[in-house]
Amino acid sequence: MDSQSNFQMKVVEGEFGYVIQDVPHLSDYVSDLQCDSINWMRETYPNPLRSNPAYSVVKQYFVDMDDSVPEKMVVHKDTPRGVHFRRAGPRQQVYFASDDVLACIVTCGGLCPGLNTVIREIVHSLDYMYGVTKVLGIEGGYRGFYSKNTINLTPKLCNDIHKRGGTIIGSSRGGHDTTKIVDSVQDRGINQALLLAQVYIIGGDGTLRGANVIYEEIRKRGLKVAVAGIPKTIDNDIPVIDRSFGFDTAVEEAQRAINAAHVEADSAENGIGMVKLMGRYSGFIAMHATLASRDVDCCLIPESPFYLEGKGGLFEYIEKKLKENGHMVIVVAEGAGQELLVTKNEEDASGNKLLQDVGLWIAQRIKEHFAKQATMPVTLKYIDPTYMIRAIPSNASDNVYCTLLAQSAVHGAMAGYTGFTSGLVNGRHTYIPFNRIIEKQNKVVITDRMWARLLSSTNQPSFQGPKCASVSSAGQPGTDDKVTGLLGCLTPKP
Amino acid sequence: MDSQSNFQMKVVEGEFGYVIQDVPHLSDYVSDLQCDSINWMRETYPNPLRSNPAYSVVKQYFVDMDDSVPEKMVVHKDTPRGVHFRRAGPRQQVYFASDDVLACIVTCGGLCPGLNTVIREIVHSLDYMYGVTKVLGIEGGYRGFYSKNTINLTPKLCNDIHKRGGTIIGSSRGGHDTTKIVDSVQDRGINQALLLAQVYIIGGDGTLRGANVIYEEIRKRGLKVAVAGIPKTIDNDIPVIDRSFGFDTAVEEAQRAINAAHVEADSAENGIGMVKLMGRYSGFIAMHATLASRDVDCCLIPESPFYLEGKGGLFEYIEKKLKENGHMVIVVAEGAGQELLVTKNEEDASGNKLLQDVGLWIAQRIKEHFAKQATMPVTLKYIDPTYMIRAIPSNASDNVYCTLLAQSAVHGAMAGYTGFTSGLVNGRHTYIPFNRIIEKQNKVVITDRMWARLLSSTNQPSFQGPKCASVSSAGQPGTDDKVTGLLGCLTPKP
Amino acid sequence: MDSQSNFQMKVVEGEFGYVIQDVPHLSDYVSDLQCDSINWMRETYPNPLRSNPAYSVVKQYFVDMDDSVPEKMVVHKDTPRGVHFRRAGPRQQVYFASDDVLACIVTCGGLCPGLNTVIREIVHSLDYMYGVTKVLGIEGGYRGFYSKNTINLTPKLCNDIHKRGGTIIGSSRGGHDTTKIVDSVQDRGINQALLLAQVYIIGGDGTLRGANVIYEEIRKRGLKVAVAGIPKTIDNDIPVIDRSFGFDTAVEEAQRAINAAHVEADSAENGIGMVKLMGRYSGFIAMHATLASRDVDCCLIPESPFYLEGKGGLFEYIEKKLKENGHMVIVVAEGAGQELLVTKNEEDASGNKLLQDVGLWIAQRIKEHFAKQATMPVTLKYIDPTYMIRAIPSNASDNVYCTLLAQSAVHGAMAGYTGFTSGLVNGRHTYIPFNRIIEKQNKVVITDRMWARLLSSTNQPSFQGPKCASVSSAGQPGTDDKVTGLLGCLTPKP
Amino acid sequence: MDSQSNFQMKVVEGEFGYVIQDVPHLSDYVSDLQCDSINWMRETYPNPLRSNPAYSVVKQYFVDMDDSVPEKMVVHKDTPRGVHFRRAGPRQQVYFASDDVLACIVTCGGLCPGLNTVIREIVHSLDYMYGVTKVLGIEGGYRGFYSKNTINLTPKLCNDIHKRGGTIIGSSRGGHDTTKIVDSVQDRGINQALLLAQVYIIGGDGTLRGANVIYEEIRKRGLKVAVAGIPKTIDNDIPVIDRSFGFDTAVEEAQRAINAAHVEADSAENGIGMVKLMGRYSGFIAMHATLASRDVDCCLIPESPFYLEGKGGLFEYIEKKLKENGHMVIVVAEGAGQELLVTKNEEDASGNKLLQDVGLWIAQRIKEHFAKQATMPVTLKYIDPTYMIRAIPSNASDNVYCTLLAQSAVHGAMAGYTGFTSGLVNGRHTYIPFNRIIEKQNKVVITDRMWARLLSSTNQPSFQGPKCASVSSAGQPGTDDKVTGLLGCLTPKP
Repeated sequence: MDSQSNFQMKVVEGEFGYVIQDVPHLSDYVSDLQCDSINWMRETYPNPLRSNPAYSVVKQYFVDMDDSVPEKMVVHKDTPRGVHFRRAGPRQQVYFASDDVLACIVTCGGLCPGLNTVIREIVHSLDYMYGVTKVLGIEGGYRGFYSKNTINLTPKLCNDIHKRGGTIIGSSRGGHDTTKIVDSVQDRGINQALLLAQVYIIGGDGTLRGANVIYEEIRKRGLKVAVAGIPKTIDNDIPVIDRSFGFDTAVEEAQRAINAAHVEADSAENGIGMVKLMGRYSGFIAMHATLASRDVDCCLIPESPFYLEGKGGLFEYIEKKLKENGHMVIVVAEGAGQELLVTKNEEDASGNKLLQDVGLWIAQRIKEHFAKQATMPVTLKYIDPTYMIRAIPSNASDNVYCTLLAQSAVHGAMAGYTGFTSGLVNGRHTYIPFNRIIEKQNKVVITDRMWARLLSSTNQPSFQGPKCASVSSAGQPGTDDKVTGLLGCLTPKP
Repeated sequence: MDSQSNFQMKVVEGEFGYVIQDVPHLSDYVSDLQCDSINWMRETYPNPLRSNPAYSVVKQYFVDMDDSVPEKMVVHKDTPRGVHFRRAGPRQQVYFASDDVLACIVTCGGLCPGLNTVIREIVHSLDYMYGVTKVLGIEGGYRGFYSKNTINLTPKLCNDIHKRGGTIIGSSRGGHDTTKIVDSVQDRGINQALLLAQVYIIGGDGTLRGANVIYEEIRKRGLKVAVAGIPKTIDNDIPVIDRSFGFDTAVEEAQRAINAAHVEADSAENGIGMVKLMGRYSGFIAMHATLASRDVDCCLIPESPFYLEGKGGLFEYIEKKLKENGHMVIVVAEGAGQELLVTKNEEDASGNKLLQDVGLWIAQRIKEHFAKQATMPVTLKYIDPTYMIRAIPSNASDNVYCTLLAQSAVHGAMAGYTGFTSGLVNGRHTYIPFNRIIEKQNKVVITDRMWARLLSSTNQPSFQGPKCASVSSAGQPGTDDKVTGLLGCLTPKP
Repeated sequence: MDSQSNFQMKVVEGEFGYVIQDVPHLSDYVSDLQCDSINWMRETYPNPLRSNPAYSVVKQYFVDMDDSVPEKMVVHKDTPRGVHFRRAGPRQQVYFASDDVLACIVTCGGLCPGLNTVIREIVHSLDYMYGVTKVLGIEGGYRGFYSKNTINLTPKLCNDIHKRGGTIIGSSRGGHDTTKIVDSVQDRGINQALLLAQVYIIGGDGTLRGANVIYEEIRKRGLKVAVAGIPKTIDNDIPVIDRSFGFDTAVEEAQRAINAAHVEADSAENGIGMVKLMGRYSGFIAMHATLASRDVDCCLIPESPFYLEGKGGLFEYIEKKLKENGHMVIVVAEGAGQELLVTKNEEDASGNKLLQDVGLWIAQRIKEHFAKQATMPVTLKYIDPTYMIRAIPSNASDNVYCTLLAQSAVHGAMAGYTGFTSGLVNGRHTYIPFNRIIEKQNKVVITDRMWARLLSSTNQPSFQGPKCASVSSAGQPGTDDKVTGLLGCLTPKP
Repeated sequence: MDSQSNFQMKVVEGEFGYVIQDVPHLSDYVSDLQCDSINWMRETYPNPLRSNPAYSVVKQYFVDMDDSVPEKMVVHKDTPRGVHFRRAGPRQQVYFASDDVLACIVTCGGLCPGLNTVIREIVHSLDYMYGVTKVLGIEGGYRGFYSKNTINLTPKLCNDIHKRGGTIIGSSRGGHDTTKIVDSVQDRGINQALLLAQVYIIGGDGTLRGANVIYEEIRKRGLKVAVAGIPKTIDNDIPVIDRSFGFDTAVEEAQRAINAAHVEADSAENGIGMVKLMGRYSGFIAMHATLASRDVDCCLIPESPFYLEGKGGLFEYIEKKLKENGHMVIVVAEGAGQELLVTKNEEDASGNKLLQDVGLWIAQRIKEHFAKQATMPVTLKYIDPTYMIRAIPSNASDNVYCTLLAQSAVHGAMAGYTGFTSGLVNGRHTYIPFNRIIEKQNKVVITDRMWARLLSSTNQPSFQGPKCASVSSAGQPGTDDKVTGLLGCLTPKP
């Protein structure tokens, strides 16, 4: 599925190092956009918002075609201007006539707070802003395109769904079959005598990789179908964007589990409260939940390798903390310490299943270690709040965010852009080419300041030897907190 | 108090229109900083963090002296680079020896979620990062400097305060007396045989205007005292910065009141639920709470004038909504419609007190209007959740934000900067000169896209005549969503 | 409306002072119940639950006809057994054939957490247990019987309503017109060719007084219509029953407001936080919220008169508390201190409207008092969370309670009982004759132990002179905590 | 530890079958209570509350010596009056002089919401009501008496602890050593030149069994030490009492997990959400949480055996539900289905550990079953919220309840009662002899109506064969919902 390199990003350059990484547009490959004889895309249309009383008085509402947003924010006097993204928002002209559009929405992968808010807002924006009323919900993820029923999504049906967790159109992993999916979109359009469509795909990096392939297939077939992605990952591991929707809600909800772990630990002699949080490849939830809580003594994430035994190891640190305070709280991201699990796995082939849950595994190791020692009996309580976090409705902040992401996606698709995701970059809504979103994962940069803030908050050891440090200290002046990078010996890109 | 113009901002320019608006530094006016014979500031000191195990391995943790962050984010290929702010963060060298520093913390004005988190983090950062242990909490706002006791703030005392609302050192309005306050700081230092101090002032625009005067007095006296501000306004009406701490929590908590108003309205015939939210001069909380909730049919804010009677007025809209849905929800910012109140006030001198609460006043007007009409009896329930919102502890997101604001302020003061506030600009922590923070208030720009999003979400009328629009439509291409400006006929700067 | 005395309670007596206050039954006045020639109530029917797999194996599920529950619980060795009520629950035989029944549900008066849970459960019980599918929701309270549309309430429609506050069929005050209502019920039945009906009335004491009149009219007309009440009062002022539904939720939610008041008070110098809670004639919510919170220094309720000025008055107590702690929290029930308001009212005729809200009035008095004194400037924050409390969904405990109340009502009506409410008496579900429910209001007995517990928790003065005490000390040994009574000089029955 | 039979309950009988099961009193075995020459218990003392301004005016505050509360509530006209308990509350005379008392508080076993509220209230009541200031917190459960430090519990220290979960004095299981504990109490008293003490023991049935042994040892030694228990069991499995503290909070908090399970299930194809709730031997939390939520399709508890495979089994029911609704929610009490686990255990000795968690075990079985079938792939999400529920602070209802339990215990001990627990019986606070509390466990009676209500709410099969039913149908007319009993073939007493 590395076909993403087939289509080059549209790149424009300007003075003083200005670069814009643009998103594709239907007119890039649909030659008849300006000269079609049938009734649809003969020409562009004035944006219906121009006659909407709410916006009509204010020209400024429409985004200037040249607006762009820089990716890099921390600059020096002489730094070149660098990469920019196209600003999201409504355009004066649109490329779809409202009556002719069939829109499809699909949600893929695990649950994330805000899914229903995004669905609701796509439906509402299409209808109330652009008059598009044919909106299909594809049930149960990608495979719903070809093997399941669809739901007609009306503004009324969607009116209150943002107050519920989950996704009303269901979700699943996998099921991606490019040909069947594109066939299905094509057929549905024809059945409704429509020649153009918009496909809104809400999902994580795997899903968006699939969305990119769908976009490329659609482009090959020359279809007038816009493909818009909305990045979804509760783990916040999508690159380029400031944060993914649902992340804020997840961090908030994780506080409950940490509080409970703290109480359990504090009420027992040598009590250890351990909370496993989401984060398969990146520790953002664990890190932010730790920083927000202030009750955590140790935060273990995939990006920061650690070891259990010996000097500077986890066991030593636990013993130190218990002696000092009588209790401690550990937060562990689900992807942390996989190296240890793999190693152990080779030694002990039978324990296969248990090893998959790093939280349970570490909990077991800790119990065994202190049981062996016998001098310091510990009481460990393990909490896994994963599904209780994923399933809640989004909070106010994520509700606003989801609303804007969805509106941006709709504005973009209506304007004829395709092969893009909407995304917040440095506080501004932009359109980002798929390539940038799927090329790598966002990770906690443990040589950067946010992680140092966490270390200073928990006082946990860095679990690092000098050899690693020498690599990471090569960081350049002017590095950006949010820039994610490959970190030599630490977290090779999966 | 317009003395802020006495001291010019430090401005440096670069290529392609690059400008940096820098913050003052103690070395700007303390001549003996490099050549003092007594024991304190003979020279700069290596940052103690350099020997902190958590950071020592990573050089990159320290901010490069040249790092800056642009204020303007939406740019064109040929836009000049514009204004930048100095990036916040620890410097390799500091200007205070830990043992010699007396730090004072004061909180002024109304309550705001996160105050205790900021206090906690200043205390913890000073102690755990820089070894500064003499930290005084000034009780009860500015007047505490000269008329009240102080509290010794220790890390232990502050350990759990972030889980409580309010401020443990108390707060009050007013009480600013420059001479007494600076005298007090000077005396306290001398009493402890200290010649240098740091004053952390947490408050709104009035408070920070006071902080600026304090800074100028200190500068005049040539004292080695750093003045650092942390902008506090639950209303989010501080300019330049992305958002103020506590705002996110307030919007979240406002959802409860809106939900209740919705239920009350929905359960009655022609039910109207009205919620008054904070926002004396700016409607950010009302706007964001409305966008997050999706249950609101009308949002009234100070920046968008409206009228009650006649065509296009509020009463007409209410009648329309009640006929359509049988109920409606109105959110009103406390500063909305003050023009109407003033007018009425002149007509009816006796009703003085009641008029001050715009929510109650509008509620009364609506009841009277529909009682007069007699054809559509309405049931109106009025909710004022102000104190329930202000008093809650900050949520996870604000906890992280407060932590970073406080750390930035401490890093800045330790590095010898003064006369600055810490603040988030386009997602990066920066130091902003007082002048920029106090020159005007941040307001909802009703000709900008965020307000248009709200209008499209509520479908409420714009309450605007064409003459206003012609002014605001003068907005330039490339305007920035977040830029606040003077809006000719609409919201003159107070 | 004192016609309730027309129909005597059915009373049966037994040994050792045993008395049962029974509820009416359709067979009391419908002579043809056993010998009707038409197709409906010729005979009783076996309860359909007997063939329900969930219950069929267990005979014990059906209530024994002789089961009764004592009203008085605190007894001596030689105390007579006293009044009993009929135990609620399914009977082996029912008096309605499922297909022939039309059920109507109406909710009256102010909102209360749990209304939707009760509605849901009546609908579900009728359908799933008894096969009754014709259930009408009467919209907007009593007047909905004759002037509004109705809603067909199906199990599916009601499936999730218990998660929402308010009432899906709307509510209103007043609108009681006995003739029109009974006509309406009769007509609706005839329209559907039904000769029998069940009317479920959910409301407070006023509403149930109305329900009693409806029952008597139905009885006069000889209609085969069962009238079942479910007492609703967020104030918990219904006599006989242990507590009313929604009360527990209200007390829980009131904690938020008290917490906020505490934080506001604690963060100001001489800060006073005042919370007004529901309780027009009885102070149960205020009392329980105070006991649960432990942050309250003074709780003012209608049953305990108090005075503001002079020795032993409220002002003196406030001053004492502020001197001791620097802040205080006051909870005031909305009906507290009405005597003071009335008195003041006579003196100052113009302030009429303001006086109606006791909280605002006392707040104003306190401010004035301390402003006059000038030695102790206070900061008072007033919170009225009423509508935010009323409108929330019921908590788990109330959900279970509402479920059981609704099931009891349905079992009773199906068994042919009428003119009754379901109600919890000493932890058991019973059927209570209307007369007992409407004869007086439940009140906090301030000479009883619960109020003494509160006094010991707040340390507030009793605001009582010795003359009152001499009356109340006439309480008999063996009095029951829950027995409500007339309290001579204190709280005459309204 | 079956020594509890050594001391017979004090039983008094009266007319019409009246029986009172009384609690022991110090004067039962301390002969010198009335005629001691040393300074302590020469005589009884007037209750200090008599001079407390809050109570002094009201004689009625003191409990009449003859007040008793019946255990059985559902009666017939001719039912004998049955067992009664002594009513709790302050007595006119006390048996301890305040200055001479040493009070000890210990919490044992697992966490339960409300522990801190009970501790707080014992401390406050002893001090504020009775002037007892020497109160020791025994750290870490029973073993704290002899192997750990103690904490001086002051009203100030305890002031806010009810807002925190857990127990500030720590807890542990086991550690009961009668001799050492009684020695320790004796020694502590002597050290402080005190000859009398009160021991407050908060714990579950195991703990109270230990408390009984301690009481008997103290009695044997003739010590003037009152032993008062407060039953603690989040599972609600203590007999006689209406409910245990923390239970209400636990049921409330369990709703979160059930909601999450419902969302997860609903968003997946053939989604199954499974929640494990507390309940080792009794299913009260599971049952009440199910009734409160209404989203649960199957509730499995220890008292109701079930089987997985074949007709009428769990798998068949799951398949049916998934076909009907596409998803389902299962709640399983931790002690449910242990028979199944045991059987499997015998077959497969190596899987010992995994089998202990019934939730995981059933989840695994379900996955395997449907994987084998291959026709209906299911997605199962398993949630174990146990520690998140146990660790939260008690809600308002439990706060009031804990307050009253603690006050009752203090009143009882001050009055010289010993060997008792305080407990709510039919809504009234009473003193219950240890024997009745520890003789058996409270269980859900699955042939009673509460379970039938659940069955009718979930529509789940009864999983019962006719042979069981024939036994349980032997229930007598007039059985009491709350009476717990041994259920022949179903749930033998452990």
